[in-house]
Order: sequence, then C-alpha cells, then structure tokens
Amino acid sequence: MKGSSAIGHNRYSTTGSADNKTNIQPFVVNYRSGNLALGHNGNLTNYRTLRHTLQEDGTIFQSTSDSEIFLHLAARSKHKDQILQIKEALDAVEGAYSIVVLTDSSLIAARDSHGFRPLALGKVEGAYVVASETCAFDIIGAEYIRDIAPGEIVVIDNDVLATGEVKSYWISKRSSQPHHCIFEFIYFSRPDSKIFGVNVDKVRRKLGKLLASENPVIPQSPEDKVIIINVPDSSNTCTLGYVTESNKQGRNVRLELGLIRSHYVGRTFIQPQQNHRELKVKTKFNTVKGVLKGKKVVIVDDSIVRGTTSKQLVKLIREAGPKEVHFRVSCPPIKFPCYYGMDFPSREELIANRFNGDIEGIRKELGVETLAYLPMEKLLASAPTDDGRNYCTACFDGKYPVPIDPEAAKNENDQ
Amino acid sequence: MKGSSAIGHNRYSTTGSADNKTNIQPFVVNYRSGNLALGHNGNLTNYRTLRHTLQEDGTIFQSTSDSEIFLHLAARSKHKDQILQIKEALDAVEGAYSIVVLTDSSLIAARDSHGFRPLALGKVEGAYVVASETCAFDIIGAEYIRDIAPGEIVVIDNDVLATGEVKSYWISKRSSQPHHCIFEFIYFSRPDSKIFGVNVDKVRRKLGKLLASENPVIPQSPEDKVIIINVPDSSNTCTLGYVTESNKQGRNVRLELGLIRSHYVGRTFIQPQQNHRELKVKTKFNTVKGVLKGKKVVIVDDSIVRGTTSKQLVKLIREAGPKEVHFRVSCPPIKFPCYYGMDFPSREELIANRFNGDIEGIRKELGVETLAYLPMEKLLASAPTDDGRNYCTACFDGKYPVPIDPEAAKNENDQ
Amino acid sequence: MKGSSAIGHNRYSTTGSADNKTNIQPFVVNYRSGNLALGHNGNLTNYRTLRHTLQEDGTIFQSTSDSEIFLHLAARSKHKDQILQIKEALDAVEGAYSIVVLTDSSLIAARDSHGFRPLALGKVEGAYVVASETCAFDIIGAEYIRDIAPGEIVVIDNDVLATGEVKSYWISKRSSQPHHCIFEFIYFSRPDSKIFGVNVDKVRRKLGKLLASENPVIPQSPEDKVIIINVPDSSNTCTLGYVTESNKQGRNVRLELGLIRSHYVGRTFIQPQQNHRELKVKTKFNTVKGVLKGKKVVIVDDSIVRGTTSKQLVKLIREAGPKEVHFRVSCPPIKFPCYYGMDFPSREELIANRFNGDIEGIRKELGVETLAYLPMEKLLASAPTDDGRNYCTACFDGKYPVPIDPEAAKNENDQ
Amino acid sequence: MKGSSAIGHNRYSTTGSADNKTNIQPFVVNYRSGNLALGHNGNLTNYRTLRHTLQEDGTIFQSTSDSEIFLHLAARSKHKDQILQIKEALDAVEGAYSIVVLTDSSLIAARDSHGFRPLALGKVEGAYVVASETCAFDIIGAEYIRDIAPGEIVVIDNDVLATGEVKSYWISKRSSQPHHCIFEFIYFSRPDSKIFGVNVDKVRRKLGKLLASENPVIPQSPEDKVIIINVPDSSNTCTLGYVTESNKQGRNVRLELGLIRSHYVGRTFIQPQQNHRELKVKTKFNTVKGVLKGKKVVIVDDSIVRGTTSKQLVKLIREAGPKEVHFRVSCPPIKFPCYYGMDFPSREELIANRFNGDIEGIRKELGVETLAYLPMEKLLASAPTDDGRNYCTACFDGKYPVPIDPEAAKNENDQ
Repeated sequence: MKGSSAIGHNRYSTTGSADNKTNIQPFVVNYRSGNLALGHNGNLTNYRTLRHTLQEDGTIFQSTSDSEIFLHLAARSKHKDQILQIKEALDAVEGAYSIVVLTDSSLIAARDSHGFRPLALGKVEGAYVVASETCAFDIIGAEYIRDIAPGEIVVIDNDVLATGEVKSYWISKRSSQPHHCIFEFIYFSRPDSKIFGVNVDKVRRKLGKLLASENPVIPQSPEDKVIIINVPDSSNTCTLGYVTESNKQGRNVRLELGLIRSHYVGRTFIQPQQNHRELKVKTKFNTVKGVLKGKKVVIVDDSIVRGTTSKQLVKLIREAGPKEVHFRVSCPPIKFPCYYGMDFPSREELIANRFNGDIEGIRKELGVETLAYLPMEKLLASAPTDDGRNYCTACFDGKYPVPIDPEAAKNENDQ
Repeated sequence: MKGSSAIGHNRYSTTGSADNKTNIQPFVVNYRSGNLALGHNGNLTNYRTLRHTLQEDGTIFQSTSDSEIFLHLAARSKHKDQILQIKEALDAVEGAYSIVVLTDSSLIAARDSHGFRPLALGKVEGAYVVASETCAFDIIGAEYIRDIAPGEIVVIDNDVLATGEVKSYWISKRSSQPHHCIFEFIYFSRPDSKIFGVNVDKVRRKLGKLLASENPVIPQSPEDKVIIINVPDSSNTCTLGYVTESNKQGRNVRLELGLIRSHYVGRTFIQPQQNHRELKVKTKFNTVKGVLKGKKVVIVDDSIVRGTTSKQLVKLIREAGPKEVHFRVSCPPIKFPCYYGMDFPSREELIANRFNGDIEGIRKELGVETLAYLPMEKLLASAPTDDGRNYCTACFDGKYPVPIDPEAAKNENDQ
Repeated sequence: MKGSSAIGHNRYSTTGSADNKTNIQPFVVNYRSGNLALGHNGNLTNYRTLRHTLQEDGTIFQSTSDSEIFLHLAARSKHKDQILQIKEALDAVEGAYSIVVLTDSSLIAARDSHGFRPLALGKVEGAYVVASETCAFDIIGAEYIRDIAPGEIVVIDNDVLATGEVKSYWISKRSSQPHHCIFEFIYFSRPDSKIFGVNVDKVRRKLGKLLASENPVIPQSPEDKVIIINVPDSSNTCTLGYVTESNKQGRNVRLELGLIRSHYVGRTFIQPQQNHRELKVKTKFNTVKGVLKGKKVVIVDDSIVRGTTSKQLVKLIREAGPKEVHFRVSCPPIKFPCYYGMDFPSREELIANRFNGDIEGIRKELGVETLAYLPMEKLLASAPTDDGRNYCTACFDGKYPVPIDPEAAKNENDQ
Repeated sequence: MKGSSAIGHNRYSTTGSADNKTNIQPFVVNYRSGNLALGHNGNLTNYRTLRHTLQEDGTIFQSTSDSEIFLHLAARSKHKDQILQIKEALDAVEGAYSIVVLTDSSLIAARDSHGFRPLALGKVEGAYVVASETCAFDIIGAEYIRDIAPGEIVVIDNDVLATGEVKSYWISKRSSQPHHCIFEFIYFSRPDSKIFGVNVDKVRRKLGKLLASENPVIPQSPEDKVIIINVPDSSNTCTLGYVTESNKQGRNVRLELGLIRSHYVGRTFIQPQQNHRELKVKTKFNTVKGVLKGKKVVIVDDSIVRGTTSKQLVKLIREAGPKEVHFRVSCPPIKFPCYYGMDFPSREELIANRFNGDIEGIRKELGVETLAYLPMEKLLASAPTDDGRNYCTACFDGKYPVPIDPEAAKNENDQ
C-alpha cells in the first residue's frame, strides 16, 4: 500500500538481552485472503487454552510464539473482511499485547483492552507509522500523533491516505478501566519516550526524587563524602532525580558515573595452563578505583529482580574500598511474576519472594550497610492518574487485572 | 608454556568502530624457529621503506598489516635465539607500537623506545599477562605489576616462572625522553585504566575542571538555567570534572544525562512507497525533549576531529528547544594527523585545519552560541610530568617526535 | 520406536537433477496427537482442490508441497487414532503417491490405490524399512520382504515387532485394477531394483532386444562398421539388450562406451577478453574421436522428452566424423504430460507433441539418418501382465487413469 | 592481458577424491614485480630441501603446497624480468610438474624436463589455453595445437597475440630422454584425451587386448557363460579391449555393465535403535542379481593399489551367486610408491608389496578363482616409443628417474 509504514517492536534494552517474548522478526504467512505479516509485543494469558483448542481442531503450529495464535484465529474466521477476521481474533485473545499487522492493502495496529503495553501512532512524509515507544518516531523523524487507545483497532488503508481520517474499530470486550504496566515507567521504556501520554523521563526522575526523600543517605560531616552512582544506562534518569533532590535538601552528595561498561564481557580468555581454565570475567562493569575509596557509596538502581546482578555489583564496588555501601531501589520489592510480557523469572527465583519480603534478609544477602525500596504509595504518586489512568502493579502486589491460565501460572517461564 | 598468558589489544571504543589499525586478531606464522603469534597496537612510521626493502629482497606479503613487518624481520634475522631475532626486528622498525609475541616457549612483550602507547605487565594465578590498559587486568582479576618501560623487551619463560624474576632486554636505539601520547588521556584510554603510571580518570577529570575554569558558562540569574551534558560515554569523566568545578565556583549548573543512545542506528527502515526510500536515521543519539527546553545547554566533548558528528549533535539538541547551545572541548584544536596509531583522518579533513585554527569560523560551522577549546598549557598542566614523563602533542602542534616517511605523510590514511 | 526404520525416497537420477517433486527432506510437524514426519514420492491430482478447501477453512500453508496436504488432512481428522487420521487423509487425496510416515510410536507406509509408484517393505537386523526401490535395501544390507500393495496402509509398531506380523489397513476407494507407471521400467527406476514384483534390469534389457528386432541397423558389408553407443548411465541396460539381440541376429555390431561424462560441466571458464565472455561448455559428454570416425553410429537412448539434449548429443557425435548417425529410442514418442509425478515439461515442450507425432519431422530436427521408437505393443510386451499387472501409459497415449484437475492440467508444470 | 587464457588442472577422477596434490585453487600472491597466480600438477622431489633452505633464509610459509616453493623462489630471484625469475625457480626445483602462471601481462606454462606429466597448448577464439589433458579443450571448443615439450617454458604475451608466434624458453638442466608417467595411460588420464602425443583411448584399449591374449578366461562349453564386467568408469576402455580381443579369438564372452553406481554412498542412515548404530553402506556399487548368477565373472580393472576396494568388489559380486570370479588387471603389480604426483599410499600399504609380489597370495586375499596382471613387456608394448618416447615405470620396478629426497621417500605420504 502506498504511503503507510510499520515499525517492528524492538524495545529498549539496557541489559542487552531483554528479548522478552517480543517478536522482533514479524511472522509472515499466506492464507486465503492474501498475505499477512504480524509483529507483537506482550503476552497472551489464554495462550495455552487457545492453542489447545486450535490444535484439537486440526491446526498445525510452526512455533510457540503468541503471534501464531493471532494468525490462526484470523485465518479460521468465517468473515470475508480482513478487518473483521482480525477483530474476531482479538476478541478471542486475552492478556497484554500491542500488535501491528500488514495486509496486502492496509496497516492495522491494535492494543489490548487494558492498555498494558504502550502503542503510539505517528506520521512521516505522509505515511503512518506505529511504535511501542515514541523514541522510534524521533529516530526516523516522524511526528507523534496520538496513543492508540486500549481496545482500539486502527486501520490505515488507501482511503485513510486519501481522506486523512484514521479508521477505528474496537475490541468487543472492553475493560472498565485501563491497566497500564507501571514497570514501563520504572525500567522498560526509554526515558526519551512518551508512553501512556506522559514523558517517561519526567516520571522516572520523580521516582528518584521521592526515593531520595524517603530513603536518604546523609553525610554526617564535611569529611563524610557521599557518592551516588547509577547503573548505566537503566537507572541514569532516576539517579539524576535522586541526586537533584538530595542536594536540594542540602545533603551535598555527588553523582559519579562510577561504573564503566566492559565490552570484553562474554569473550573468554584462554589461559595456556595444564587445565586450560577460563579466566572468569567478573561482571560487565568495572569501577574507577580512586573515586570510591573511603566514601559512602549509594547505588541507585531501578529494580531488583533475582538479586544476583545486584550482589555482584556490590562485591565489585567493595573492591574499590568504599567506607560504606548503600543500595536504593526506585520501586517496591518484586514478589510476583509478570504474565503480561515482562521477562521476569518464576516466583521462586525472585529475591523479594525468596526472602518473603524481609528487607533485612535481602540487605544481608546483598552485603550492604542499608537497603531501601521506594514504597508503593510513592511509586503510584509518581505516575499520573488523571484522565482515568490506572496501573497494573501485579508484580508488586499480586493483583492481576486479567485472570491467569493456571497452567500458565505454573509454566510460563520454562517455555 | 605453563603459566604465562597474553591478552590481545582490544582497546576501549566508545564510538564503536575505532579499529585504529590495532590488530585484534593476532598474526600466527610458522617459520624455521617454530611458531610465532604476534599482536600489536600502534603504527610504524617506516612501514613503507621496510616493506619495500623486504619485497625487493624477495619477501611475499600476505597483508598490509604492520604486524607482518615484525614477523618477516624476525624470520630473516640471522640470529638463532628467538629473543635476538625479535630484538633485531624491533631495532629496525620506527614509530609507535606495543607488541606482544607468543613463541613455543615464551611470552614476549615490547614497547617502542618513545613509549607512545601504554603497555602494562600483570599477574593472575601465577601467570603473567600484558595489556595496553590495566582495566583488562581488573576484568580478569589480574594484579597490575608495573608498566613495561619505553624500549623494554620483557621475556617470560619457564625460568621466569621458576625464579619469579622477569627478564628484560632493551631496544638498541633509545629515545632521550619518552613521548607518551597525550590523546590517550583525552579520549582513547578507559577512565578505569592506569596508563603511563597515572589514573586516566584523575587526568581526565582535571581536564574537565580546567576547562570549566577557563571557559565557564555562567547563569545570569536564578531563572537562567545552565545544563551540562556529556557525550556518552567518551566525555563522561571530563564532564563530571566540568560540573564539579562549575558548582565549586558557585555557578549552580546541573548535569543532565541528556543524550540517549539509540541501538536502532545502523538498521534501515524500509518505507513501502513508490520509490522505496530509506527513512534516514538522524544520529546515534536522541534527546529527552522537556529537559533541555528553554535552558542554556553546554555540551562537553573530549575532542572535535572532522566536526561532522559535532554538527549533527548540535542540530539534534537545537530540536529540543534550548535557549542557547555552548560547546566545550577538553583539548586544543586538532590540526595535524597522527602517524603513531590514532585513527585520525587526513589533514584536509580535520575541521581545525580546514578553518586554519579560526575558532570563530568553526563556531559558526557548528552553529553554537559559544565554542571553546582547552588551551595547550592547561592540557599539559593536567598530565603529570614528574619522573621524566613527557608527551607527544603532535596532533595539536605538529611537532612529530619521530620523523615521518614522506610517503606515509601523504598516504597513510588512504591505505 | 525401537527397531523400525524408514528410508527417505531419494530416487535414482542419471540426469542429475530429477528431483521430480519427490520430497527428499521429510516434513516434520507437531500437532495434537504428537509428532508426525512424512516423506512422499508422486503427485496429487486434486492438490489444488484440496488446498483451496483447506485454505477456505482457515488453514495456513507453509509450502506448496503435496506432503503438507496429507499433514493438514490428518491433523484435521476427528479421529483419535493416528492410523485412522492418516487413513482419512489418504481417502481424500487422489493421484499417484507412495508415502512413509513416522509417528511417535509407529512407522506407516502407504501406496495409492492405483499403485502408480513402487513401494517395498524390507527388514534389516530386526527392523522394518520401506523404500521406493529395492536397491536401497541392498545398499544397507536389508532383505526384501514384499511389495506394499496398491491401496495398502502398512503399520509397524511395537506389537508388530513383538509378534512379527505386519498390520495392514486399506484405503477405502480401491481401483479395480492397478496402473503401474510403465516409465519406471523405461527410465526412472534403477536396473538393480525390483519394482512391481519384477527385476527392472530384465524388463529394460527386453526393451533393448525388441528395439533391435524392430529397428535394426544392419551393416552392409564387412567394412561397414556399426557401432552402438549408450547414453550413460540411463540407457546402459537397454543398450546391452540391443547389442546382444543385434549380434544374436548375426549383424556383427560393436558396443562402444563412446560417451565420456565430463565433470567440468556446470563450471564456467572466465576468458579475460575485453567482453569477458564465458566459454560455452558444449554438453555434459565428450566423445573419443578415433573410435567413431567413418563408422555407422547407433545411439540407443531410453526416451526423448524435449529433444534438446538429444539434438546436442547428435551434434557432438557428428564432430567425431561418423559415416552416419542413427537414433533408437526404447519407448514410444512421449506426447502427453505426466500428472502422476514424472518431471515432464508442459505438453507444448514435448518434441513428439510439437511435431504432432511426425517421426520424419523429429528425425530432421535431430539431424540423424534414421530415427526409430519402440512401438507401444512392444513396450507392453516387455512388461509382465500376469498377476493382474496393468500399466499407466498416459504419457504415450493420453489415457489418464485418474482424472486430472483442469487447473492442474493447465498449470502443473509452472508451479 | 587481452586474449590469453589459462585452465586450472582439474584432472579426471573416477574414484572421486584423487586430489593428488594437484592444486585446484591457484595460489595468488603480490610481490615486488606485481601479481602472480600459479597452478600446478605433480610433485617436487626436492621440496623438503628447498623449503628448509628457504626457511633458514627467513621465508615464512603459508602452506605445505609445492606451489608456494615456486613462488618464493621466483620472488627471491635477483632478476628483474619475470620470465627469468620463473626460469630461475624452475632451474631449482626437481621432480614432476606442469605449471601454469599468470602475471599481470602474460601467461606462462612450463613442464618439467622429464615430461612426467602431460601439458598441452590450445587455442580458442584467438586466445591461448593450456591444459594437462586435451579433453579440456574439447569441452570449451578449443583447438589442440601441440604438446609443451619437456623442459619447455612457453610464454604468451601481447607480442605473441600480435605476431602469432609463441615464445619458448628452456629449463637449464635437461634430461637426456623423457620419462612420461605410464600410469597416465593406465588410469589417470581420460580416454578422450591425447597425452604425450597419443590418444589415451587407443593405448588403453590395447592394454585390454593384450590382457585378453595373455590372461584369457575361456568358456569350457556353450553352457559355460563367461561375463566380463568393467569397474565404471575407470576400466571401461580397457574392458572394451578385453571383450573385443576375447571374441576375436572366438571365446564368445559377453560384456555386462554389471556394476551400478550408488549415489547413496557417503550418506548415513540413522537407525532408531537403542544403540543408534549406523547401517553400514557396503560399497559404492551394487550389482544386478540375475545377470551374474551361475556365470563365470571376469572383473577387468585398471590396477590394484591397496587391494581393499578390489576385495570389497569381489565380495559384492560373490553375493550375486556367480559360478566363479576371475580378476584381470591391465598393468603389472604396483610395488613402489610414486614420488612424482600419483596419490599412491606408502610402500607398506601397497598390496603387491605386502605380498612381496606373490600373486597367489594376493589371489587368496582377494578371494578369486584366478588373478592375473598384465606383464611389464606387454604394458610397454602398448605405449608408443617412436619419437624418443620413454616412460617412467617406477611404481612397478622401482627405477626412479629422478633421485628421491631420503626424507621424502620416508614421509611423502603422511604430509
């Protein structure tokens, strides 16, 4: 189709490997109504039920991707109109998803009725584009038009290009209120994006400020130097907020970019000894020794999931000889898995669950002088709630807005 | 050989592609005295003369790498002893180099007699290691022992492992004083490394401080917000110095991590229009819009080479609507090419040369309100000169410590 | 499953590229009843109808292979029992096929109800094997047990391994008589195979003998040397029959292995001239010059399809300076396409169709002194008809035992 | 250079893998006089001595190929003229070789002074071509001009293209008489080639005829059927000679193309049993069962090297139930290794050496009723000796025309 365009969902990844069930490579199939390419971001909660039903009905699956569910559902719809076929598929699936579809004649973008994941519509040189995050628009010089609404199915075809008026269809079953993933603000989205109608940078900076108010590390004397360090790049923004607020409150702390990323990581160094042992690469960061020595060091991180990386980080910083090490986290303890697309491990592996919420236990495990998380009410205070905005906080409180397939709840993460 | 080990020179690269004639993959050959593997960092100034002589004498070259010159010279030496063969080769070459060689029974590391490039000796689990930068030791848990001296050839063999005493040989022609590459401090080495016996972080931070003293941007009123932004990651450290000194002088500026790196860059987005134009990806950075709006923005960068990236950066920041944009550079204008291993372009492409040192012209070209470079005397004040330390500053003043092959001077960069 | 085994159909190919819609790589899928791997040889005549119906019903196809039709039909069957699912699929398809299927617990082999293509059951070291041609059994040291009958579905599972009694099911719609592909005898099967219960070598040799009786080339004097040459390797056997019969009738002819295969073919030789033309490789054969000079040369070939290769061959032999060139073909003119799996071109490309059966016209086109085909009644006389054996001769007479999809008839060969 | 062309030596291989130290991929290097590409066929007898000397002198070798010796010798020559450089290299090497060289402006072809290996000059569309065997000329439609003489260095450059007169230089040390490799006639060259000025087909056919005269297998009665089978394709021609002579002598034998080549060989068939054993593929041939049953079978082969393939072949034929199996070989027993380029194994592996020339012992080992080799005087009688032609028969009688490097004699074949 002349003049429309789609951007694949390649979400921001600071840890490098957060592929997160996001389908970078779109699925492309040919079926009775022509070609269909589909990319999607999120997770279907009734995936297993739908797959089982489709298989019982004779469907052969090529993959374990959620995307394929959409495609078989659309292909099996009795509707002639492709939009209606896709709407029928969307009416059947449950969970968190943003999808973009290319047919032979149109671009279709849709967002689940809870609005878990962000999805925005943009325009560049007369062509429409969609993206999970608006930073993608900046990169290609596209203009942000608006968010696609929870439950909305936007269709761009030649008519739309002629009239300039985007067509909207709606998923039948609507949620009474949205449930935006609050973790997008904390970690997942890029700070230069606008999601759920808000600048990520602004929210994330506020998280840092509230964290500094709630859980300060205060120098006891002019000689008692307090250094704040970020974990590049994911905690950069909230660390800036933490530093700003700390100094505003007169605490005289200093930001250090104290962690240097090592591009060596992942490579191995062969040591020609009898047993050919590999020299173990310690972490993906290194520190500048002199800077931290004898200081009180405050690590500001966006979140703690398993706790293993945090523990390694603390060990690395200890080697630089600080007086004390303090750990500040810009969200509450993560105690529950995410079934809506965040790449969290099983419940058993979450450190906050392992320690049953015992912060003192986690502190000892990490080996720091103090550990503090941002309380839930402060987290919510950071995220705007005007315009009926409402958030999914299931990973913190276990309140899942969409019921979970019991099997999925068990097996989601070992797929 | 039991117990010794060598690390290839994979130097720190913030811009991603600074391969810089550094031979990541070592050359491995078999010749009459056995096997020889050689890795090297730097550039030979008499490469063309040596290559021509060797070719006239019947040598067939497999590559255009400097490393191959060392190997042919060593193989053609009449000495039986491999150390003497290598010493003969080192006596013949001129220029800037650090090399590491593995023979069937020893590890040999050598540094040119001017000490242009850094080279350090370390130890891990009883084995010796060498590296251009000490950060490589941290990564594998090795201990820094000492720098290899300009003109020194260090040999580690089974005797050394038994006695613990490292053997040293010396290149015949010695320079009366060293000429350490000062640009290693400015840009090339990692801040967590110790080179030329000094912490890079310390020197680089001082560059930022002196830059702030010399070329401040001062808020005119409490409403006149001044924001300092770094160019990640290469100017991080000197930017920290700039901010610290600015605030120490009571200027009340704020550091922003204002540039977000885009991992999309390099990929292309196909637009299904009639002419299949590629959407142009603007730069490898994006900005957080709200943060810069209406502010005085000071970009602190380590250096300006061609000026093209700087110009793009300024354009990007302008789009975020700042009140003014100021550019501060932590070294003097680069007017001369480097023949000692820095991957600078030809003289004609250097912006400071194109504008014949006219700072006002460069300022207009970049499109900024003010532009300032760190003066040469401040640069030299940042780098320690005790212990006879002396620096090569040829890229700024054209004073080349080692004479340049006239042909090389012409063609070095179009190889 | 312990103790059973399947051999893929990699049929004999003398011309090198006769892949012939035979699926060398089996299809492997996972569906509700487990895994299913399927290999097949032949061609479905109602492929387009079945594919259309399945697509209308929401099936997404991954390929244009006939194999996929079987798989979707089996997966969509309402039966629980895999054997019944496969039987349902086989009841739906029409055309020529031999298939072999591996499930998680059994080996299933089936042959179309006309028995177009051969399929044999063998045994090796306690395991069952199936193959299109018995020569595959020789190669792995397996013993031939029996042919799988037209319309038979043989199942090998653990019961069979325990009892030693093979289970048979039957396709519902049975043909009143078989229609074995007679072209298997002429060209396709290997001479060391036993197909349709008969040795291919024996039949093919008889074709040569009858051809020699019907269409002799008789020396006119002791000086009039007649040389018979085969087209390696496909006409080897019938040429031997031709020579034996000729000499038995006292004609004193001599077999020459006059064509040498060139392994150079397919490679290109770059000629460094101004226009970089490729030197044209003439044919995939070369001749021994002296042997053919001044002789009457009789080329015995198994068949003529398009005629282009035959024409090239004649031209090549002419260059060796023979007195005369005669062409003998061990089957009638091929005037009709095959819809049952032989890789013939469209009707328009068949030389016998282009010349509308005018042998004299074909003779002139090939450029030979005489041209003769084996008459149909002699072809049929070579193939045994006891035990109710009956043959498909559609490529010669257009009598198709299974009706052809009108669309397929048009488009079969441009897929 | 405009108008000249070179063909790489890709010699005829019936056993598939006879790479035979022939350098299919030419070596290409750049040295002081420009580019040099070299392909070669044969073997240097003073390879080790030359390599050692060159290495002592500082040469670094990239490979163990003979070709590289030529290149280093030419590059190290003090001559300015490339022809003289190459002549100097050829004057230094000893052994059997045909080489073709491309410089930036000429095509150079040379043959060792004994003329061990064939080398011919041809012409196509105004361009000169060289090839080991003339069959290569047929394939590209080139015309054979003449053999390149032993010790001749032919140069084709722009002058030659202008004048049409080929330039000849000569290797300094000339052999008093040639020593053509007689094994080229027996096995290596293709029957459609002309080598050493003679048609290979003619010589090979004579070998078969003499073999039939010397070592007949005579039917004892009309019921005593004698079948002659070739080993495709290498013994095709001499088998034809054997059959012709046998029948001329009234023995009434019949040629059968009794061995069918299996293209399955080399592939493995996985058997899903507990121990996952591979079904062993027996040989690369299969037989047509009925044809050999109850007959006296005479295998005519060109040569026996290790004897392992022959033994397998006899075993295979025994399975077809013949009355007797006889083995005829168209050359004498091979008792000595070849140091001039034939890919024979070490002396210890040659069956005729293992049995110390005891034919009866070899017969038992092969398991045949009778075994006969062609006697040496008959072999020599088949190869023309006019025009001073003379042959190397070292593999049969150990008389090596060129002295062998003692080390090479020991280690040649385990390189």
